[in-house]
Amino acid sequence: MIKIVNNPSLEEWTKLIQRPTLETKNLSEFIETLFKEVEEKGDIAIREYAQQFEGIVRVDFRVSESEVAAAKAKCPIELQTAIKTAACNIEKFHSISQSMTETIETTSGVWCSRKTLPIKRVGLYIPGGTAPLFSTVLMLALPARLAGCGEIVLCSPPSKDGKIHPAVLFAADIAGVKEIYQLGGAQAIAALAIGTETVRRVDKIFGPGNQYVTAAKQYASSKWCAIDMPAGPSELLIIADETANPDFVAADLLSQAEHGVDSQVVLISNSPLLAERVQQALTQQIITLPRADIARKALESSLIILFDELKTALDFSNAYCPEHLILATEQAQHQAEFVTNAGSVFIGHFSPESVGDYASGTNHTLPTAGFARAFSGLSTASFMKTITFQELSQQGLLNLASVVETMAEAELLQGHASAVNVRKNFILSNFRNGDQ
Amino acid sequence: MIKIVNNPSLEEWTKLIQRPTLETKNLSEFIETLFKEVEEKGDIAIREYAQQFEGIVRVDFRVSESEVAAAKAKCPIELQTAIKTAACNIEKFHSISQSMTETIETTSGVWCSRKTLPIKRVGLYIPGGTAPLFSTVLMLALPARLAGCGEIVLCSPPSKDGKIHPAVLFAADIAGVKEIYQLGGAQAIAALAIGTETVRRVDKIFGPGNQYVTAAKQYASSKWCAIDMPAGPSELLIIADETANPDFVAADLLSQAEHGVDSQVVLISNSPLLAERVQQALTQQIITLPRADIARKALESSLIILFDELKTALDFSNAYCPEHLILATEQAQHQAEFVTNAGSVFIGHFSPESVGDYASGTNHTLPTAGFARAFSGLSTASFMKTITFQELSQQGLLNLASVVETMAEAELLQGHASAVNVRKNFILSNFRNGDQ
Repeated sequence: MIKIVNNPSLEEWTKLIQRPTLETKNLSEFIETLFKEVEEKGDIAIREYAQQFEGIVRVDFRVSESEVAAAKAKCPIELQTAIKTAACNIEKFHSISQSMTETIETTSGVWCSRKTLPIKRVGLYIPGGTAPLFSTVLMLALPARLAGCGEIVLCSPPSKDGKIHPAVLFAADIAGVKEIYQLGGAQAIAALAIGTETVRRVDKIFGPGNQYVTAAKQYASSKWCAIDMPAGPSELLIIADETANPDFVAADLLSQAEHGVDSQVVLISNSPLLAERVQQALTQQIITLPRADIARKALESSLIILFDELKTALDFSNAYCPEHLILATEQAQHQAEFVTNAGSVFIGHFSPESVGDYASGTNHTLPTAGFARAFSGLSTASFMKTITFQELSQQGLLNLASVVETMAEAELLQGHASAVNVRKNFILSNFRNGDQ
Repeated sequence: MIKIVNNPSLEEWTKLIQRPTLETKNLSEFIETLFKEVEEKGDIAIREYAQQFEGIVRVDFRVSESEVAAAKAKCPIELQTAIKTAACNIEKFHSISQSMTETIETTSGVWCSRKTLPIKRVGLYIPGGTAPLFSTVLMLALPARLAGCGEIVLCSPPSKDGKIHPAVLFAADIAGVKEIYQLGGAQAIAALAIGTETVRRVDKIFGPGNQYVTAAKQYASSKWCAIDMPAGPSELLIIADETANPDFVAADLLSQAEHGVDSQVVLISNSPLLAERVQQALTQQIITLPRADIARKALESSLIILFDELKTALDFSNAYCPEHLILATEQAQHQAEFVTNAGSVFIGHFSPESVGDYASGTNHTLPTAGFARAFSGLSTASFMKTITFQELSQQGLLNLASVVETMAEAELLQGHASAVNVRKNFILSNFRNGDQ
């Protein structure tokens, strides 16, 4: 079912670690036009795009408190409890001490400090589509609240029944989100970035989405506001040795493959026997899945790679840089220490990716497409920023004056030197006058 | 000389806090073509663009160790000492404890942790142009080294004499940079992002540049690698009361204005007398500057705003969100506590911006154009990323199983539920077998 590659050479790695590229040429023109129209026409443009792409237009797209209350009643109690338990774990893991200020005297009389502050107003985007992603509501809104963001805004498109899914509203409610708009697609991103009569602009936009949403976020980040990270199809890489259970591995591969036809799934093993058994288990398990067609398509472009050494498997994984990495090996804890590039790592045979997707406590918003080389998954820090401060005493200014003057003059910035020089002369002349 | 605005209303703030927008329409096509050519032709494309835009082509654009050694000999001893002193302060402020791993047991048998790791390979861009920005070398390379980045790559274009300025090479050398390329402009960014035969691609690109470099970084971030932050013209906002020294304030305004004709300079005061005296001091001081013409142009589009209350001045500053903020007031320390949006803050009458530009120890790579609402200035953390880990015992898996199953099924992702279910059944059947 999945293509097997045996001991690929280092030259072949370059090709194997590549992800399919999405064609976005025409998209960028569409997005530029959309942003321009939202800038000029505000809510009217938003409604026009909603009509065109969702076929549903709410005149007032802000979701009312009574709608949120009604949604709660529609969520089964068992689901409410599950969401609350997951929220509790996510809160535990994402709690950090806030607003740390550390002051360092770098030179006598020169005090420097750094202060961490919440981003004031953040926008969270929750996609619609086939599945109601209420788990993503928790993953975005809980760290935002823990960071201390003053205003947390959520946008989500309506389901087929014309309303946001009740579980999404319930999760938003228990996470403390008070400002919810029934808005989807690239037009929701434009509203959050630029601002309209109804939606005030936000400082940073978070959340997943289709390629329109992704392109809109990227465009928004060039001019209007910050975004969490570049988004791409979800990925899972599993390193499994002969101690791995083929049924577990197959189930994990399928849990990733069912996300979408563009999901990236890779299994690496040093055991040809395990690889064979996983193939068999895949064939048995896939027929039980409601989303079997999607999973089958995703597996077609997936890979099983065999290496003689698990060490090489780890090297390959660090080069591939997966969003999710499962270490289904006897020495998983030891191997975890050598992971240098990954979004989130699942250690051992009883840590499936799906526990991290929902409830272990770690965040499921993670860098894809190799961006984990430089990006981190979401954390409370993603909802904060730092400001640096410096204060110099008169003596501190004198202590640094010649350093700054020399460097500024060498950079041909005489005005920079003068700003120090005018103060130095003032201090020295006061000192002399005081002396007389 | 500078336009004065008296007690602007809140409605006027929206306009006053806007920055001029740069027209980048044609630029994006140019950048896309350049990236495509570098992808296809590698070094050959890099050399063609260097020939076209810099008129100088080095066949081997890697700078040799002997060139670096020769550069040191060309730096005056006084400048060497100044650079070393600045480096020492920057290192003191940027030192943080690394690779913190914190493990939290979110549910019994569910252990989650976060590990901070250096980004492996980073690219630093140092612009050429009229001034050799060796101070920026320190601001980028020192935090990269402190973060533990394994490979620090520096690109900088040649000066008019066909070589990188010796002070840039000297600063790179004392900061520990071993891989230097004489490459400038958008083609240098493309080489760093995509990789060529000579320059291997990097994971994240840092550093300032003209609008070609900025557009290239933005484009690189959509597909190839991370970048530090969106860049724009430098900015300074000063809040000054009647205790401020007009000569100091004028010198600070000019130190910002001399950067470029597009520099943003704003003075806010509650004292019309101070504003008048600053205007006089500006007229006197500007004629002494080598870059007077640039400064004069920048001041033409600058503002003095008068507010009755300093509290309103602070509110305006938080709305404007300046890259640099000087608090030249009697109660500067107290007011600093209320700053919520700024890149770096300079407290009191003896803390000119130029000390932060060179030597106080804080970083001078800061968010402009209002991006400080959500972005932080560079720090050692900018050169690191985090990976999360989770490990579940069999009991931990059982404890979370129903939560994950319930949520996955409600999100219509049966495969996610199955990955937990298959393990749960295995554990329970083993348990029963053991019981018999």
